[in-house]
Amino acid sequence: MSGLTVGVDLGGTNTRAGLVTESGEITVRSRTPTRLDLGSDGVIEGIASCVNEVMAGQEIDAVGIGAPGPLDPYEGVIISPENLPCMHGVRLMDRLEALLSLPVTVDNDANMAACGEQWLGAGKGVAHFLCITLGTGVGGGWISNNLLMRGFNGNAAEVGHVSIDKDGPRCPCGNYGCLELYASATAMVRRTKERLVGERPETSLILDGLSTEVIFQAAEAGDAFAQEVFEDTGALLGIGIASLASAMNVEVIALCGGLARAGDRLFEPVRRVYADRGTVGVKEYVRIVPGLLGDDAGILGAARLAGSQV
Amino acid sequence: MSGLTVGVDLGGTNTRAGLVTESGEITVRSRTPTRLDLGSDGVIEGIASCVNEVMAGQEIDAVGIGAPGPLDPYEGVIISPENLPCMHGVRLMDRLEALLSLPVTVDNDANMAACGEQWLGAGKGVAHFLCITLGTGVGGGWISNNLLMRGFNGNAAEVGHVSIDKDGPRCPCGNYGCLELYASATAMVRRTKERLVGERPETSLILDGLSTEVIFQAAEAGDAFAQEVFEDTGALLGIGIASLASAMNVEVIALCGGLARAGDRLFEPVRRVYADRGTVGVKEYVRIVPGLLGDDAGILGAARLAGSQV
Repeated sequence: MSGLTVGVDLGGTNTRAGLVTESGEITVRSRTPTRLDLGSDGVIEGIASCVNEVMAGQEIDAVGIGAPGPLDPYEGVIISPENLPCMHGVRLMDRLEALLSLPVTVDNDANMAACGEQWLGAGKGVAHFLCITLGTGVGGGWISNNLLMRGFNGNAAEVGHVSIDKDGPRCPCGNYGCLELYASATAMVRRTKERLVGERPETSLILDGLSTEVIFQAAEAGDAFAQEVFEDTGALLGIGIASLASAMNVEVIALCGGLARAGDRLFEPVRRVYADRGTVGVKEYVRIVPGLLGDDAGILGAARLAGSQV
Repeated sequence: MSGLTVGVDLGGTNTRAGLVTESGEITVRSRTPTRLDLGSDGVIEGIASCVNEVMAGQEIDAVGIGAPGPLDPYEGVIISPENLPCMHGVRLMDRLEALLSLPVTVDNDANMAACGEQWLGAGKGVAHFLCITLGTGVGGGWISNNLLMRGFNGNAAEVGHVSIDKDGPRCPCGNYGCLELYASATAMVRRTKERLVGERPETSLILDGLSTEVIFQAAEAGDAFAQEVFEDTGALLGIGIASLASAMNVEVIALCGGLARAGDRLFEPVRRVYADRGTVGVKEYVRIVPGLLGDDAGILGAARLAGSQV
């Protein structure tokens, strides 16, 4: 055992890999465009070449791959991620193990980010930890008693599909009022556009080029409507967190992804609403904090999880 | 190690104990009124005498106590259950270990019921299992990968306080729209009374002596309003289960408590709503079933959990 592992973040646009030491340093990195145009063979060769590049002939113990879900982590099979259409049904673990002659672990990117943050970031030393990623959707990775919770078929901690409103709009997942429809970056932009059109509020925001970053800058510049948008999004996230905390009883909840970089503008309403709605005897101990590892969380977590399974 | 353990169900009315074999037979039973009037000393002596009675001088390995929550299972301390006022803050584990000279495990009654059902009942052989108890409240006990999920301070799987409606009524727990406000036996009776008064429906039901059993009998006798009450309660429970399944990814969900004895009248709407709202790729595998052990689930689970920890 060399103590070295490789973590890979497989995205719809780029494939990134890092050589990770036992203490959690990424000593070598590589990146290549994810060649969806070449089909699954091209994507898998891209992963293998990234891995080989960071290994540079050194001996490593295992490779971990974080990929978009849904996937089956037990079998290492990609199921049906929207942004990797050519990979649906591909037995990624088996194919990479054959190519690399190394043990390969596959899990979804949110789980890998949670493993990374719990190892070295916002959840360091925290045995009961939830990592929520706010992006296109709302993803979750959850560690209980220092173990990654996968559930019976790898779909635990799908926190974006916990409903906060039984009478809310239908989600593509089939449920109604899913947290993802209210608190993802995508949802925040969509709801803001709807309000711009429907309410014509006094604001510097315009439909064209609207993003969470643009809304954030406007809020920082004193735009009251933009501030209200953050307030509302944070409050809705806090409502979801109150339910998640009742199910999971985690001590630390980290918020990750671009939206979490808004800092107190997001965290203040999240924490206030959770303080109002959380259970007495629990909420006093729960900390809601920003993720600390940024884009490295997935690579570090994938390396860590793979290393723990050999 | 004798392989024998004692399981205790500490309730606000009765304290019950059973001597449990390694294969899960309850070979001796005892029961005594819970002497709340004598304070914590009286309650603890009642437990000890029940345990001694079923042991009858035999060697046993451990004692497990299921008690109403909230409690701290790590320290074995009763916190603040409504129906055991004299026990608030009592270090039950320490006090019983001193009295009995045996290892004692304390956990909440819903967790113990889940352990029992997973050992010998509705969750037998199921690694990822949720047991929901429908009674005064809605309690939950959850096993993931064959381990009881306790969370950082023993409050995991408080499924009754997962919200199904962010704008719903406030729950005594502090949250709004909690599942417990819609799907407990108590809530079902309360909502029925409200409708009887507010809507004056055509029904054989009357306010006086109303219970879930009375509503069930009326529904069986063809009372359309009573049938609708079950339909609504089941649907609301199904809505909560869709969220719980997204967080926990369990394969089997058992419904326990008196209300679950209504059979298809309750299970049909629960399953139908979950089939509508559950996540594709998960819901096809999830089974929602009745608990099988009745009042013995808690004693068996307490014995099992205690035995597993020595």
